[in-house]
Amino acid sequence: MEELVGLREGSSGKPVTLPELWGPCPRVRRGIRGGLEWLKQRLFCVGEDWYFLMALGVLMALISYTMNFAIGRVVRAHKWLYKEVGDGHLLRYLSWTVYPVALLSFSSGFSQSITPFSGGSGLPELKTMLSGVILEDYLDIKNFGAKVVGLSCTLATGSTIFLGKVGPFVHLSVMISAYLGHVRTKTMGESNAKELEMLTAAAAVGVATVFAAPFSGVLFSIEVMSSHFSVWNYWRGFFAATCGAFMFRLLSVFNSEQETITSIYKTSFRVDVPFDLPEIFFFVALGAICGVLSCVYLFCQRTFVRFIKTNRYTSKLLATSKPLYSALAALVLASITYPPGVGRFMASRLSMKEHLDTLFDNNSWALMTRNSSPPWPMEPDPQNLWFEWYHPRFTIFGTLAFFLVMKVALSFSCLFPIPHLICIPLLSLCPGIGHFQLSAAFPGPWPELPHLGFGPAGAAAFSGAVTHSISTALLAFELTGQIVHALPVLMAVLAANAVSQNCQPSFYDGTIMAKKLPYLPWIRGRKLGSYPVIVEHFMNRTITTLAKDMPLEEVAKVVTSTDVIQYPLVESTESQTLVGTVEKTHLVQALQTVTPGQQSCLQDILTDGCPTQPVTLQLSPETSLYQTHNLFELLTLQSLFVTSRGRAVGSVSWVELKKAISTLINPPAPK
Amino acid sequence: MEELVGLREGSSGKPVTLPELWGPCPRVRRGIRGGLEWLKQRLFCVGEDWYFLMALGVLMALISYTMNFAIGRVVRAHKWLYKEVGDGHLLRYLSWTVYPVALLSFSSGFSQSITPFSGGSGLPELKTMLSGVILEDYLDIKNFGAKVVGLSCTLATGSTIFLGKVGPFVHLSVMISAYLGHVRTKTMGESNAKELEMLTAAAAVGVATVFAAPFSGVLFSIEVMSSHFSVWNYWRGFFAATCGAFMFRLLSVFNSEQETITSIYKTSFRVDVPFDLPEIFFFVALGAICGVLSCVYLFCQRTFVRFIKTNRYTSKLLATSKPLYSALAALVLASITYPPGVGRFMASRLSMKEHLDTLFDNNSWALMTRNSSPPWPMEPDPQNLWFEWYHPRFTIFGTLAFFLVMKVALSFSCLFPIPHLICIPLLSLCPGIGHFQLSAAFPGPWPELPHLGFGPAGAAAFSGAVTHSISTALLAFELTGQIVHALPVLMAVLAANAVSQNCQPSFYDGTIMAKKLPYLPWIRGRKLGSYPVIVEHFMNRTITTLAKDMPLEEVAKVVTSTDVIQYPLVESTESQTLVGTVEKTHLVQALQTVTPGQQSCLQDILTDGCPTQPVTLQLSPETSLYQTHNLFELLTLQSLFVTSRGRAVGSVSWVELKKAISTLINPPAPK
Repeated sequence: MEELVGLREGSSGKPVTLPELWGPCPRVRRGIRGGLEWLKQRLFCVGEDWYFLMALGVLMALISYTMNFAIGRVVRAHKWLYKEVGDGHLLRYLSWTVYPVALLSFSSGFSQSITPFSGGSGLPELKTMLSGVILEDYLDIKNFGAKVVGLSCTLATGSTIFLGKVGPFVHLSVMISAYLGHVRTKTMGESNAKELEMLTAAAAVGVATVFAAPFSGVLFSIEVMSSHFSVWNYWRGFFAATCGAFMFRLLSVFNSEQETITSIYKTSFRVDVPFDLPEIFFFVALGAICGVLSCVYLFCQRTFVRFIKTNRYTSKLLATSKPLYSALAALVLASITYPPGVGRFMASRLSMKEHLDTLFDNNSWALMTRNSSPPWPMEPDPQNLWFEWYHPRFTIFGTLAFFLVMKVALSFSCLFPIPHLICIPLLSLCPGIGHFQLSAAFPGPWPELPHLGFGPAGAAAFSGAVTHSISTALLAFELTGQIVHALPVLMAVLAANAVSQNCQPSFYDGTIMAKKLPYLPWIRGRKLGSYPVIVEHFMNRTITTLAKDMPLEEVAKVVTSTDVIQYPLVESTESQTLVGTVEKTHLVQALQTVTPGQQSCLQDILTDGCPTQPVTLQLSPETSLYQTHNLFELLTLQSLFVTSRGRAVGSVSWVELKKAISTLINPPAPK
Repeated sequence: MEELVGLREGSSGKPVTLPELWGPCPRVRRGIRGGLEWLKQRLFCVGEDWYFLMALGVLMALISYTMNFAIGRVVRAHKWLYKEVGDGHLLRYLSWTVYPVALLSFSSGFSQSITPFSGGSGLPELKTMLSGVILEDYLDIKNFGAKVVGLSCTLATGSTIFLGKVGPFVHLSVMISAYLGHVRTKTMGESNAKELEMLTAAAAVGVATVFAAPFSGVLFSIEVMSSHFSVWNYWRGFFAATCGAFMFRLLSVFNSEQETITSIYKTSFRVDVPFDLPEIFFFVALGAICGVLSCVYLFCQRTFVRFIKTNRYTSKLLATSKPLYSALAALVLASITYPPGVGRFMASRLSMKEHLDTLFDNNSWALMTRNSSPPWPMEPDPQNLWFEWYHPRFTIFGTLAFFLVMKVALSFSCLFPIPHLICIPLLSLCPGIGHFQLSAAFPGPWPELPHLGFGPAGAAAFSGAVTHSISTALLAFELTGQIVHALPVLMAVLAANAVSQNCQPSFYDGTIMAKKLPYLPWIRGRKLGSYPVIVEHFMNRTITTLAKDMPLEEVAKVVTSTDVIQYPLVESTESQTLVGTVEKTHLVQALQTVTPGQQSCLQDILTDGCPTQPVTLQLSPETSLYQTHNLFELLTLQSLFVTSRGRAVGSVSWVELKKAISTLINPPAPK
């Protein structure tokens, strides 16, 4: 049935239905309808950033939670097996070692068979990508599955293999964001330039969904950027990270693991007098010690990686059969951590979370073990997990020291070949340093003092020093739910960074160099005298230009004899006035379809439709090195042409910039 | 007596003293000496950033603490006077009002007599400066004294005038950093470009020394930057802010105010179950309400400022006699807050710190006042300060509501003319909103629930919405020393920002527009279609070029008839090839000393020594608006020349960019 319609009085617009026309308060209703329309327009305009950011956060939280859940089940099964297998040493040993060996060799084999890019933490590559280099395949969504399965298997080995999930998770998050961006540009028909604009926010989401820590996620995404951070990404990062962290914690509430949303490793330090003023000094000293240790760690790690790569046997093993290598490494590690053996001295029966729980603990162990000596329980006592750390002859600090040394050693041994490595499990390593510090800082007379806060401080300082970051300090607060130690922990982290940044490249930068990824060095320090150096001094003068009046034979000769992606196009051989660039692929195509006789010079094939690009930005020979460096970093450029009075006189790319900067840092000896 | 010297075996170097030559372990000693030398070199190389950053932090902390101390004394004296003056209403009234009137008129008169720049919070100007505009005098050190004295007097009026110290403190900090930078470039003979590089870090120090909150200081300095943040400033900011915050808290320990370094407004929320899950919804709702309120606030504030400026009486008063205006405003405010009068309903006997203490409080007031009705004490009871909020007939929520309305109204009335205004005291205003929310969110049946956390959440959301920032959330945690509410507070702040950023410009941006300071609008949103717009469409085509072969008379004519700072210099009138720029002042100088007959064209005076600058960066007509905007923001440029095949064809400056962006946002109607 058709509805009756009428025209409103005085309006020449479209007719409205009669019930609407004669209903009460037409104006108010129209106003409300208009408001709702406006709201709908604002909220449901598909393609807005915030849809994708929310989707990204929620997706990552789901993945993170599911992975945690599955891993927890596998670890529990392993523990149950180990408990039930009986007292025979051989059976126990087998049940302890076979699990990680099987998981790791599967993980390594599976992920390597799909793609070689799923190995490693992925953070160094991310850093390189954010500085403007495009790494093909790195963000391909098909790596996703490989990385998820590999990571789950690696983490499911429990405390045997000392690896964390932050790095791989950031990589996963970046992959998803790139994929979402790709989908968006496809469906919305938007410019490709927007495809990668959410990567930085994705890094924040990665951290936030592992630790439920949005603030440190955003700080981390700032630190990952090498030089300049867009404030847009700050907002994007906060929004997405909050969504992710909220979802992640919400799931654990829904799963009845918790009563409400709280921090992951709750501590209960005293609030009224969290620490005595003189302790500040020990905090800073702890930071400095962590800094020195991190330098040693970074140095050893690099040496070890080089050794693995150059040694005849290991390099052969790595090249031909990665699963076998992983299995061997896992066997060695599992043998070391076998609880009735050496593992007795490093609390190897605890999982990583339990390690953290005991190490962030509130108790002064020295005091508690002074008078009584609890027996070593057959299996960990959930109420007194820290008993695991105690050994009658070795004392608790002996165990801690041994734990630290072994964990560092272990983290080397699996650092390189196994598909998922990461250095933030160091976070779990370092509260140990904090606790250990107690015995050093307060020997003899003071063990009664409740030296709280050293645990998180040590954790933050060491992991901050290794990765050259401050966000670990905030992470320690977000994990523990208390921020009363803000100043001392921050001072410890700054001290650790002061030491390590002066002596060693960070873990990421070291890996970038080791993997020979492209990178642009910073112009560090004020004394380098970078201001007087100008482009003229270091530009590449031997550029091959194509003039419009060049004969086609010559063009073909140039194209076949040189190996560059694009050529600068100049007005004429004589004037050399830069007018644009032309890509090699287009040129080759056009040259192949040329009809001899009709076209004689380059101008002809250009008018016939060979596409050229305009030059949007050009340097002058007088531009300073400093300015050029800034420009390259800010706009994430790869190369620029230098023009002088319109003439193309040279080009500058990362190669020239790197050379110029290294000349500044190590000036050549005067001859 | 001269020392005996000898030569080391096999060395041809300089002679060493005999005791050293024959002492034990010469190598080890030499090694240690070398190490110390290296350390000395690293530490004592004057001119390094970190000396200045530390000096900046310590200086600001000293100033902040001294100011707090002095203000505390003055406020105590006022309270004592008010208490001792007897029961006569006239005397009481006089003792309550004369103080603020005197202080404010002095503050206003003193600072205005020295410099007009000391008024206001200074943050909008800072934002403008950081985007590359140079505001003369704004950072002059001679404003410093005026600002310090003015700020102290304003704050010493206690709770009468509702102003905070963050904004002015950031301004002070920036002034000092600019001064230190100036001193450094003078003494070290370095480039001027480095003079202003510490401004962003100084902003972080300003916040950190007021609240002892280094993390939120650094986040604040990120948010102040309009588009891009240099990661160097992140490190600088953290270092300086930590120094400042540490020194600031250390002083209060030394002065025996505290036992150790803790957070300023300690709270003790429950850690195990900080909030029930459904409360998350109320947190977000609170955020949205705060967002709407902040829009109303910003709108009213702008309207009020416009009213003050356009009204005949007030504008005349402001122009001619600012101290009188301030005195009148102070009299009105003091009369309103007079405790036995209306002030009874707004707890006006409490100082700002006491307001915060009571509002961040842990107690459910509704529950506590349900059964008993405490009498209004003659003077505030230090143990039960919250009694001040209670009125038998008005109920505690009535008082709170009245307090909120009045404070917002009051903050308008003094917002404009008084030398030091700031919107972060809103922080103290907003816990009220949080507390108030309780009665709205949980009416009737639930008042027993300890709804903690709403206080800080309301504070963070409202001040975050007014200033368009997230750092207020972190500030709330750093102030209270607990971060258990991280997620809900963050969600409230994001909700508040989502509302206010969509509807109103931030407090700073609004002020920038009202003061007609130069600013570059953002290219917001994805739908603007900024990608296809290129420089050719919006550049200024009518540039006046000076050709090298121009006769001098013509040059003189051009220079006198146009009003620009620098002219583009081209090779010849015919070719128009851009070769550099020449400044008007230099040109005028050169033209004045010209000897007729000898010099006939511009080329001659250039070879005679008139300095020219090279063009280091040039745009092409094909550069996109998006890229140009990025370039201007990233490199903080003012204007660039556009060249096409070497010819100068136009120029782009902020004016053209602004016009292009506003055309994008409001496209002209098709004719």
